[in-house]
Amino acid sequence: MTVSKRTAFATEESLHRIFTIPEAPDSTLGRIEQEISQNLAGFLGEHIAAQEQALSEIEKDFSCSAIPEQPTFVSDHMHHLLDKVVSQSVHTSSPSFIGHMTSALPYFILPLSKLMVGLNQNLVKIETSKAFTPLERQVVGMLHRLVYQQKDVFYQEWMHSANHSLGAFCSGGTVANLTALWVARNNLLKADGEFKGVAREGLYKALKHYKCEGLAILVSARGHYSLKKSADILGLGQDSVISIPTDNNNKIDSQKLRAKCEELAKQNIRILSIVGVAGTTETGNIDPLNEMADIAQAFQCHFHVDAAWGGATLLSNKYRPLLAGIERADSVTIDAHKQMYVPMGAGLVVFKNPSSVAAIEHHAEYILRKGSKDLGSHTLEGSRPGMAMLVYASLHVISRPGYELLINQSIDKAKYFAELINQQADFELVTEPELCLLTYRYNPKIVQYYLGHCSNEEQLELNNLLDKLTKFIQKRQRENGRSFVSRTRIEVEKYQNKKTLVFRVVLANPLTSKSILADILSEQLELAQESHTFLPELLSKST
Amino acid sequence: MTVSKRTAFATEESLHRIFTIPEAPDSTLGRIEQEISQNLAGFLGEHIAAQEQALSEIEKDFSCSAIPEQPTFVSDHMHHLLDKVVSQSVHTSSPSFIGHMTSALPYFILPLSKLMVGLNQNLVKIETSKAFTPLERQVVGMLHRLVYQQKDVFYQEWMHSANHSLGAFCSGGTVANLTALWVARNNLLKADGEFKGVAREGLYKALKHYKCEGLAILVSARGHYSLKKSADILGLGQDSVISIPTDNNNKIDSQKLRAKCEELAKQNIRILSIVGVAGTTETGNIDPLNEMADIAQAFQCHFHVDAAWGGATLLSNKYRPLLAGIERADSVTIDAHKQMYVPMGAGLVVFKNPSSVAAIEHHAEYILRKGSKDLGSHTLEGSRPGMAMLVYASLHVISRPGYELLINQSIDKAKYFAELINQQADFELVTEPELCLLTYRYNPKIVQYYLGHCSNEEQLELNNLLDKLTKFIQKRQRENGRSFVSRTRIEVEKYQNKKTLVFRVVLANPLTSKSILADILSEQLELAQESHTFLPELLSKST
Repeated sequence: MTVSKRTAFATEESLHRIFTIPEAPDSTLGRIEQEISQNLAGFLGEHIAAQEQALSEIEKDFSCSAIPEQPTFVSDHMHHLLDKVVSQSVHTSSPSFIGHMTSALPYFILPLSKLMVGLNQNLVKIETSKAFTPLERQVVGMLHRLVYQQKDVFYQEWMHSANHSLGAFCSGGTVANLTALWVARNNLLKADGEFKGVAREGLYKALKHYKCEGLAILVSARGHYSLKKSADILGLGQDSVISIPTDNNNKIDSQKLRAKCEELAKQNIRILSIVGVAGTTETGNIDPLNEMADIAQAFQCHFHVDAAWGGATLLSNKYRPLLAGIERADSVTIDAHKQMYVPMGAGLVVFKNPSSVAAIEHHAEYILRKGSKDLGSHTLEGSRPGMAMLVYASLHVISRPGYELLINQSIDKAKYFAELINQQADFELVTEPELCLLTYRYNPKIVQYYLGHCSNEEQLELNNLLDKLTKFIQKRQRENGRSFVSRTRIEVEKYQNKKTLVFRVVLANPLTSKSILADILSEQLELAQESHTFLPELLSKST
Repeated sequence: MTVSKRTAFATEESLHRIFTIPEAPDSTLGRIEQEISQNLAGFLGEHIAAQEQALSEIEKDFSCSAIPEQPTFVSDHMHHLLDKVVSQSVHTSSPSFIGHMTSALPYFILPLSKLMVGLNQNLVKIETSKAFTPLERQVVGMLHRLVYQQKDVFYQEWMHSANHSLGAFCSGGTVANLTALWVARNNLLKADGEFKGVAREGLYKALKHYKCEGLAILVSARGHYSLKKSADILGLGQDSVISIPTDNNNKIDSQKLRAKCEELAKQNIRILSIVGVAGTTETGNIDPLNEMADIAQAFQCHFHVDAAWGGATLLSNKYRPLLAGIERADSVTIDAHKQMYVPMGAGLVVFKNPSSVAAIEHHAEYILRKGSKDLGSHTLEGSRPGMAMLVYASLHVISRPGYELLINQSIDKAKYFAELINQQADFELVTEPELCLLTYRYNPKIVQYYLGHCSNEEQLELNNLLDKLTKFIQKRQRENGRSFVSRTRIEVEKYQNKKTLVFRVVLANPLTSKSILADILSEQLELAQESHTFLPELLSKST
C-alpha cells in the first residue's frame, strides 16, 4: 500500500480509488486471493486454529455496535478477517466434515463466483441482467426436464414464454417450499364469481367464500421445519401442517395418509397440499411418491415434493428409480447448493404446469411491466444475484454423467460406512442409508444386548443415559476440530418409538475417504472412554 | 489444460480433480480471473458487444433444455460464458448506467467475495458458520444502532442474546419487508386465552377470535410493490394494502392517512402496520416519518419504515435529518446492496424491540435447538451464505465518514443534474431530487408552453404523445448501449394527476461525472430528433 493510499478518504477523489484502483497483486489481499485460488484447502488449513475457541470468547471480537468512524486499510482489515473470522469459521469443505449438507465446492466455482459478483447483475428484471434472464430460464428448464422429462416441444413452447414460468430460482429450499405452497394456496382459493381470489382478498374471506373450516398440509413426521414456517407465513398456521407417522424406514405410511385425508374431508377441511419428502433431512429416506401421487389425485389436491436435498439423485440413472413418481408432483423443490455442489444461495422450485405461477404474478410501473420477460414478476424475492450462472456452469462442466458418478459414489460410501458401523460391536446403526445419509450411535455391545432384554422402564433409563453420552461425544469431537458429525433426535421403533439421540452423517464430500471414516469411529470410541460418568453408569446398569 | 485433464471424468478419481486441483494461473479461467482482479471495468469494456442484441436472439443461445451428457472443459466453457453471457450482460458498474439502484462495487469486494464463497459457510446455524454468527449479529447490531442510536449497554445486553435478535439478515428488501410484516402480524394476533396465536392457528381463526373484519397495511401511493406481494403471501390479500395519496413532493399526506385510520377503526378493521417510505423507488422522496409515528402511536399499530434504498442516508450526518422519526419505527428495512455498495443479496430488517422476533421463532431437532444462538431460528430463510462478511468489511474499510462522502456526493450530483435539466429549454424536470434520484423527460419548450395553456383534453393528448416519445428515447438509448436511464409512470399534479411516463435516474455511482450527465442529455436530444412520428406530431399540435 502506497503512502498516498494511506491518506485515503481525506478527499472525495481519494474515495474514488476504492472503486477504480484494484488491489495490487503484491498487496496482502492480492496475495491472499492468489493463495485461495491456488489452494483453498491448504490456505484454510494454515489459518485454522488448532484449538476450538468457545463462542462466548469469539463474541468478544464482535461486540462493538458502533460503525467505525475511522476507515481501515484494506490490507489491515484482511489480516483482521484472517485472524478473527477465517480462523474461527467452519471448515465445511474438509473431507472429515460429514455432519451437514454443506459440502466442498469444485475449484472452478471460485473464479466464476468472482466474475458473478463483479458483474453484479440483478435478476429481477432484464434491464439489469439481460442474458442472465434467458440463462436462468434455461437452468430452471433443465431442472424441470430433469424432474418431468417433457419433450423438446414442451420446452420450446414454455421455457422463454413471458407469461409463463417453469419454476423460480430462490435463495434456498425454504423460500422454494414457501413459493410452492403460496402458488398452491392461490390456485386453490382462486377468484370465483364475486370473490376476487385469496391473493386479492386474503384468507379470511377466501375460506368464508369457499365455505370451508380450514386448510391442511399433510407431510410425514420427517418433513422439514420449513413447512411449518411456510404454513405460519402463509396465514394457515403451523397447526395446519399435519404430521403423518412413518414406517420403519422413515417413509410416510400411505395408509395413514389416506385415512387422514378421508377424515379431513368429513371435517370440511380442504387439503392444500400433500408433501412428499425425497431425502429427509434427518435420515435421508424417500417417501413412496407414486402412492402419494395416487392419493393426491384421489383427493384432487396439490402434490408437492420437497427434494431440496435428494433431488440431485435424479441425475443418477442408477438411483433415479428411488424417486419414481416425482414426475407426478405439481411442484418440486431442489437445492443446487446441496448435492449439486454450488455455493450457498441456490434453491429452485419447478412447477409441472407452466401456468401455475400466474397465481402469484405481480407487476409494477418501473419494472415487471405486463408482457415483459422480467423474472421478478413470478418470484417471491425481488432483487437477486446471478447465481444461476454457477448452476449453469456446473451442469456444463460436470455434466449429468459426472454428477451421476458423484451421487453414486456418495451412496456407495454411505453403504460402506454402514457396514463399518455394523462390524463394530460397540456401535449401533440406527437408520440404514438409502441415499448418502445415515444415523448411528456409540452403544457398547453389552448395553445393546441388555436393551433387548430389559423392562421398558429400564430401556428408557438406559437410552436416556445413551443420549447424554451421544451428546457428550458429538460435542467433544466437534471441539477437537479434527472431524465433525451432527446429532439429531429421532423416534426409533425398537425403543418404544421414543425420540433417541443419534449421530447423523452426510457423505457428499467426494474427498471423504474410507480411512477418514474409520478414524471418525476410532475417535468416537476414545471419546466415549473419556466420559467418566455416563459410560460407567451405563455399564454398571447393564449387568 | 493438460492431456490428462482432457480425459476428465472417465474415472471417479479424475472427477476428484475438480475438487482438489485449482485452475492453473495460465489456464483461460486463471488468466481471466487475473484480468478481472486487475481491472474489471477494462475487462468488461473489452468484452461488451458494441451492438445490442435482441432478447429473442440471445434466447437462441439458451434454448436447450437437456442437461449435457458430455462434460465441457472448464477453459472451453469459460470462452462460452464470455461470448454468450458476459458480452450480453448489463454493465451495471458503468458510470453511465444511471437507471437503477444497482451500482458499482469497490474493488476490495471482489477478492473478499471469493473468500466468502470458498469458505461456503451456512449462517442458518453455528455448526456451519461459527465466527460468522457473532459477526452477522454485530453487523445487524451496527445497523440497528445506525437507526435507533441506543446506548452501549443496550447492545451489550441484546446483540448476542440467544433468545433475542436485533433484526434479520435477508437476501433482499422484499424478504426484509415480508419478515417485518410477518413479525407485526404475529405480534398483533398473538396467543390469548384458549387461542394459541396466528402462528399456530392461522388467520381465519385469529380474526374470528379477535372479532375483527380484516387487517390493513397503510402506505403511500409510492410504496414498493413488495408490500402488496407480502400482503398476498401473509394471507391478508393485496387489497389490504391501502394506498394513501401523496402531496406534490411524493410524500404521504398525513392528514389523509389519519382520516383513513379513523375510517378503518369504524369499520372494525385493524391496522396491521403503517408503512413509511424512506426513499421511494420511483422518486426517491422520504415520507414525514415523525408525523406517521404520531399516527401509529395514536392508533397503537406497528410502524414499519421501508428504507431499503434510502436507509444508507443515515450514514451521512448532513442528510440524516431527512429521515427524522425513523428511530420511532418498530422495524426498518435497509438494503446493503443498494447505497452501501455491497453485491446483490444483502438485505436487512432491524427491530426496535429485541423481543419482537420471538413471534416468528421456530426450532428443529437437528439444528436451531432451544437456547442455541443459531441465527436460523429467527429468519424467514433457512440456509444462507455469509454475505454479512462483505457488509462488515465495507463498514470497516469505508467507515461512516467514507459513506457520508459517498452519500453527500450522490445527492449533490443529483442536484447538479436537476439544475442542468432546468437549464435546458427542451427538458422538463418532473420530480426534484431529495436524495440522489430524480425524474424528468424530454419536452420541447414550445410543447411545455402549450401544455400550460391548452384544454384538459388537448393536454391529455399531448402527454400521450410525450409518453410515446419518452419510451422511444429510453429504449433507443438502452439499445445504443452507451448509457442507460430507466423509465416509470407517475402521477403528476400539474397534468391532472394523470400517470405520466418519465425518465428515472439514480446517481449512486461515484464515477458518474458531470460530463457523462451532459452527454446523456445530448444523446436524448439527438434521439428525439430520430423520432419521425411522435416529435413532428407533437410540434404540429402545439402551434
